[in-house]
Amino acid sequence: MNELDRNKKIIGEEAAKYIKNGMTVGLGSGSTVYWMLKKLGERVEEGLDVKGIPTSKKTERLAKEFHIPLLEFSDIQQIDLAIDGADEVDEHLNLLKGGGGSLVREKIVDAEAKQLIIIADESKLVLHLGTFYLPVEVVPFGWEVTASRIAKLGGSTTLRETNNHVFVSDNGNYILDCDFGQIKEPATLHEKLKLLVGVVETGLFVGMTTNVISTKNGKLIKLA
Amino acid sequence: MNELDRNKKIIGEEAAKYIKNGMTVGLGSGSTVYWMLKKLGERVEEGLDVKGIPTSKKTERLAKEFHIPLLEFSDIQQIDLAIDGADEVDEHLNLLKGGGGSLVREKIVDAEAKQLIIIADESKLVLHLGTFYLPVEVVPFGWEVTASRIAKLGGSTTLRETNNHVFVSDNGNYILDCDFGQIKEPATLHEKLKLLVGVVETGLFVGMTTNVISTKNGKLIKLA
Repeated sequence: MNELDRNKKIIGEEAAKYIKNGMTVGLGSGSTVYWMLKKLGERVEEGLDVKGIPTSKKTERLAKEFHIPLLEFSDIQQIDLAIDGADEVDEHLNLLKGGGGSLVREKIVDAEAKQLIIIADESKLVLHLGTFYLPVEVVPFGWEVTASRIAKLGGSTTLRETNNHVFVSDNGNYILDCDFGQIKEPATLHEKLKLLVGVVETGLFVGMTTNVISTKNGKLIKLA
Repeated sequence: MNELDRNKKIIGEEAAKYIKNGMTVGLGSGSTVYWMLKKLGERVEEGLDVKGIPTSKKTERLAKEFHIPLLEFSDIQQIDLAIDGADEVDEHLNLLKGGGGSLVREKIVDAEAKQLIIIADESKLVLHLGTFYLPVEVVPFGWEVTASRIAKLGGSTTLRETNNHVFVSDNGNYILDCDFGQIKEPATLHEKLKLLVGVVETGLFVGMTTNVISTKNGKLIKLA
């Protein structure tokens, strides 16, 4: 295991400790979340009583593999805690997410959770968001027009593809990967984008994170 | 033909006159639009050169039946004119739309058109929007949570059904029919709703209409 993966494992396993008996927990997506799910599976085997809400089909598969009991969204009263990854975390704990293509489900679950813990290795901690492309989920009908509206806000857009086919999200939508350069005002940019007709959601998660677990030089660090 | 249908026919046929040779035209949805499409089909038969962009699968079917040439969204440079119906039109020409379930496609086309003509019989002209339910299109995943967020803004919500099944829009989403009572500030309400995670689009069309064609006591009237 290389150093990056070792750090992801330390971070993911630490996050699993925050889950208490009886909690309903939003289960995020990504390579660091994998280690959290694996650890949580071990704790469930030891008798921990939890219910999980997966935010992607991949996480749902993994959770089942690790024998984590799952709930349908329609059956929940509240989400006590969500643990999720991110592509970038800025100094105000705002996030850029969605490289994996599950941003809408992640945002619905993360926004509903009383506490949101973000797990992200050191390379994801940035001064300003925007080195990664910003994913914007759009309705397929008329996506070309939606892309040109986003361009008018200053972003160059690329329709996400996978294996030479248009990538389709879990919700049947397209993803435009947008380059706005450094994003100094994520709240403002999110609102402008979300208000465009045709835009379903953006990968900017502003003011939602309560805690971040990361590493610095191989040691755990926590931000709040 | 009863008086209401006679008025719809007069209005729809009048609107078709606004379509000029060479135009690309957004084709709306609804019972008044039917008469516009029928008239447009006659004009095409007489040699008018137009290209239509349908806003619903039903309109697409009708347009084909009337031999109106159609374009894909990806093939257009601009939309010169859109002609669409509405469930309600207020005195500022703001609209409440979406009873038919095609609000996202309609809004994408109507918003892109240089000119938007709304055709609506007299019963649709109101002082304030909100007698009709306001349709809000939402992502199916977590729709219960989205409904409770809408409720916090003051609207009671009903998940739209058809023949005892959940109604699914052309985009694969659900529709929440919302009762906010009289909507005195449609721009503000639209923004609050659209910014909610899980909301794809609302049926409030604010500041988009350029002209309204209607009737009063069986005679054509025009508002702009």
